[in-house]
Amino acid sequence: MTNLIISGIFGHMGRTVLELAQADKEFCVLAGVDMKNGETAGVPVYDGFDKISAAADAVVDFSAAANLYNVLSYCERTGAAAILCATGYSEEDLKTIERASGKIPLFKTANLSVGVNLLQKLVKEAAAFLGENFDVEIIEKHHNLKKDAPSGTAYMLAESVNEAFDGNKKYVYGREGMTGARDRRELGIHAVRGGTIVGEHEVMFAGEDEIITLSHSARSKRVFAAGALKAASFMKGKPAGRYDMKNVIDGMKK
Amino acid sequence: MTNLIISGIFGHMGRTVLELAQADKEFCVLAGVDMKNGETAGVPVYDGFDKISAAADAVVDFSAAANLYNVLSYCERTGAAAILCATGYSEEDLKTIERASGKIPLFKTANLSVGVNLLQKLVKEAAAFLGENFDVEIIEKHHNLKKDAPSGTAYMLAESVNEAFDGNKKYVYGREGMTGARDRRELGIHAVRGGTIVGEHEVMFAGEDEIITLSHSARSKRVFAAGALKAASFMKGKPAGRYDMKNVIDGMKK
Amino acid sequence: MTNLIISGIFGHMGRTVLELAQADKEFCVLAGVDMKNGETAGVPVYDGFDKISAAADAVVDFSAAANLYNVLSYCERTGAAAILCATGYSEEDLKTIERASGKIPLFKTANLSVGVNLLQKLVKEAAAFLGENFDVEIIEKHHNLKKDAPSGTAYMLAESVNEAFDGNKKYVYGREGMTGARDRRELGIHAVRGGTIVGEHEVMFAGEDEIITLSHSARSKRVFAAGALKAASFMKGKPAGRYDMKNVIDGMKK
Amino acid sequence: MTNLIISGIFGHMGRTVLELAQADKEFCVLAGVDMKNGETAGVPVYDGFDKISAAADAVVDFSAAANLYNVLSYCERTGAAAILCATGYSEEDLKTIERASGKIPLFKTANLSVGVNLLQKLVKEAAAFLGENFDVEIIEKHHNLKKDAPSGTAYMLAESVNEAFDGNKKYVYGREGMTGARDRRELGIHAVRGGTIVGEHEVMFAGEDEIITLSHSARSKRVFAAGALKAASFMKGKPAGRYDMKNVIDGMKK
Repeated sequence: MTNLIISGIFGHMGRTVLELAQADKEFCVLAGVDMKNGETAGVPVYDGFDKISAAADAVVDFSAAANLYNVLSYCERTGAAAILCATGYSEEDLKTIERASGKIPLFKTANLSVGVNLLQKLVKEAAAFLGENFDVEIIEKHHNLKKDAPSGTAYMLAESVNEAFDGNKKYVYGREGMTGARDRRELGIHAVRGGTIVGEHEVMFAGEDEIITLSHSARSKRVFAAGALKAASFMKGKPAGRYDMKNVIDGMKK
Repeated sequence: MTNLIISGIFGHMGRTVLELAQADKEFCVLAGVDMKNGETAGVPVYDGFDKISAAADAVVDFSAAANLYNVLSYCERTGAAAILCATGYSEEDLKTIERASGKIPLFKTANLSVGVNLLQKLVKEAAAFLGENFDVEIIEKHHNLKKDAPSGTAYMLAESVNEAFDGNKKYVYGREGMTGARDRRELGIHAVRGGTIVGEHEVMFAGEDEIITLSHSARSKRVFAAGALKAASFMKGKPAGRYDMKNVIDGMKK
Repeated sequence: MTNLIISGIFGHMGRTVLELAQADKEFCVLAGVDMKNGETAGVPVYDGFDKISAAADAVVDFSAAANLYNVLSYCERTGAAAILCATGYSEEDLKTIERASGKIPLFKTANLSVGVNLLQKLVKEAAAFLGENFDVEIIEKHHNLKKDAPSGTAYMLAESVNEAFDGNKKYVYGREGMTGARDRRELGIHAVRGGTIVGEHEVMFAGEDEIITLSHSARSKRVFAAGALKAASFMKGKPAGRYDMKNVIDGMKK
Repeated sequence: MTNLIISGIFGHMGRTVLELAQADKEFCVLAGVDMKNGETAGVPVYDGFDKISAAADAVVDFSAAANLYNVLSYCERTGAAAILCATGYSEEDLKTIERASGKIPLFKTANLSVGVNLLQKLVKEAAAFLGENFDVEIIEKHHNLKKDAPSGTAYMLAESVNEAFDGNKKYVYGREGMTGARDRRELGIHAVRGGTIVGEHEVMFAGEDEIITLSHSARSKRVFAAGALKAASFMKGKPAGRYDMKNVIDGMKK
């Protein structure tokens, strides 16, 4: 049994985490934290961590980068694991996170989905296997409200490819005009935006008359909420340190 | 029976046109034109149109924009139809082509494939049908030697979409950084390059929780050679004027 | 303003219709009908239509084929339009539906999504345009709980293709063993099952070295709930008769 | 330098092997074998191996299963490596092949493409990683003249998945009628046929709201001819034994 606090519980992702956690006997949601006090689905919600007396095993945070300090303070005070799932952290925030991981078990990952983490692994292998004779391009698709491009996951995949080429690839974010023939070192990353697409990533390896494509499609944000819960369960009772989805998946294998 | 001259007969496309024409009783290849005199598969090849005495019904030109004047001169002199399949014409060339179409039957098209021309038709209908509630993005893929981006066909498809929106769309050729939410008027065109890909075009319409995708994949350049031959057969004996693949396809329907 | 009764309101689709209707000022949900009396989101729910006194413009029925008689009786008594969205009707049921459409405005469709209906239209055109030289195959993908195969939508698309060939195609549902070369008249329909896939349909036209693919992907059942609401709004006040999604879409165009 | 005999040199694949070999300084084509004596592109062709006096390093056989005995006899007599690329071997033939591999270096593989062999490797890993929570289905597409279904490569991929599940999967070759919910142990293999498609294979892993797809597309038969030449180069001078594409690829890595 893992005892949870859900930070950002009134948001879309927070509510999804709550729903999945309540449907799974492995979890008990002790409390939520959000902008105002209240209650949801039988869980008390507070407008600050200082009002929580219960001792949680983990805080799942889907609120916002601005709450980072509050989440980490609570975890340092109580020993709970921090499952950081907000986005948009600043350079300063990232340093704070690094420091905190010396004191508490802290989870932060580029992508919460099991499938994307597998994809990353396979992409790296494929790049090493196929080598210079195959050109690599990445296409990602997201909804029309997404504010940044390319996605963090697309960059994560590009880095995995690039490692296999000793960092020699240079990223290209689109092509227009008389570009000339493709340079071997190019790695195209194309950000498609439209509708309500949750998140699709496709890595193409194009060689002489053959193409290998490795892709992932997330069909709802439940995938990410489920990943956060897997992380919370894994992180319970772990020693201080920095963890990501790869550690969780390796743990699941045992 | 259509009597042909193939201009650029020693090039890859010229040879493919020759091969297909010789396998089809509908065609007779009288001569070829290329950089040097010679012979190929029983067909005499000359280094200039002035050396050809035979009267052809059509000249299929896959040579280069630089030969435009020679091709048109021969057609004006003999009444043969001009099937212009070279690429990279300048503004000046386009004016010359326009003028020539007052004197001879002249064929020029954005894409020689029957399938792409169908795609263009369907894309236009889909855009009109779905309207503002669906975001449109185009992804095209070509081999790593292609020098320009996006492809002429991608532009042709984008224009078809844009017509349905009274020309209000603005083309976006990639996204990088803090782009903000997608503007309704954006129409993304993404040029993927790799390997030996002959030509793929995909038009995506993404709405609320549903996506329609219309796509075409050319698997060899034979598709384009076959289109040029269909055009030559159709153009034989037509009155002076400008024709494109749509005319040919409409003619095939009857 | 369209006044609705939602039949099967406690089911997954019923709840989704309720949620979308309550978020849209165009609709007012008067009551729900389901197995037991109760209340949900401020809407009274009854275990039978006889307990409803309010006069609705339309009944949206996502319950089950077994409730057909009750839904139609209510509509015949009150003049409400019947929006039939249940599945699994028997031959006997279909006759009952046909008869009822002589008395009330009755909506029933093979697919509630706007996109699928567009797809059907485009597929028909493509088949007529491409003719015998292109082989047609349909691939559909659905979740692992779906009990029938292929999907009703796949059959609807196959029928649209078949019409263009005067009904000469014969459906093939998979291939195994020494099948011999593909017969021109075959139309393969492949039912893929896995995970929680909501519904994907792809129609492939494969010719000589070129492939055209027209596809639709539904990413949540909201697409179907939204379609049912569009139908309800359209059907309000219509004369008795049989209507389907094509009528709704044509109505939206005006 | 590898000295080759090409068996079936007048066939489509034989000619492609010849073309690629002559364009690569690594190879010298000593002779061809086919139904009748003759000559092609400067290479003498004989209607039987007994007429060849030259000593080759390898025989690349793209003829037919019926020639197996002749190919193996020549190799046993001269010590040349046998690169068996024909299809349709009988049970009896397979035993003959097994016996021959005790005397000569013998290469036989389910798929000659580097990309397909990578795909097989990745598919196996993915199956092991994702486990029972993801449903696996395979879709393969080939031209309309292919006589058997599913393809040998599709079976090869299915076997790789099945190994990860201790052989518990049962293959399903299509679905029609009231099939009921998908059984966990099913592994769907769908054979799509149309046009001139060279060979496409897609392995789908569908879980809860996420889908991973690993796919390969061969765009011309040159891919297979190139694979046969890689094999011939690798096999030159190897000790007697049975080898396949995995050995060749591992050899390329060193």
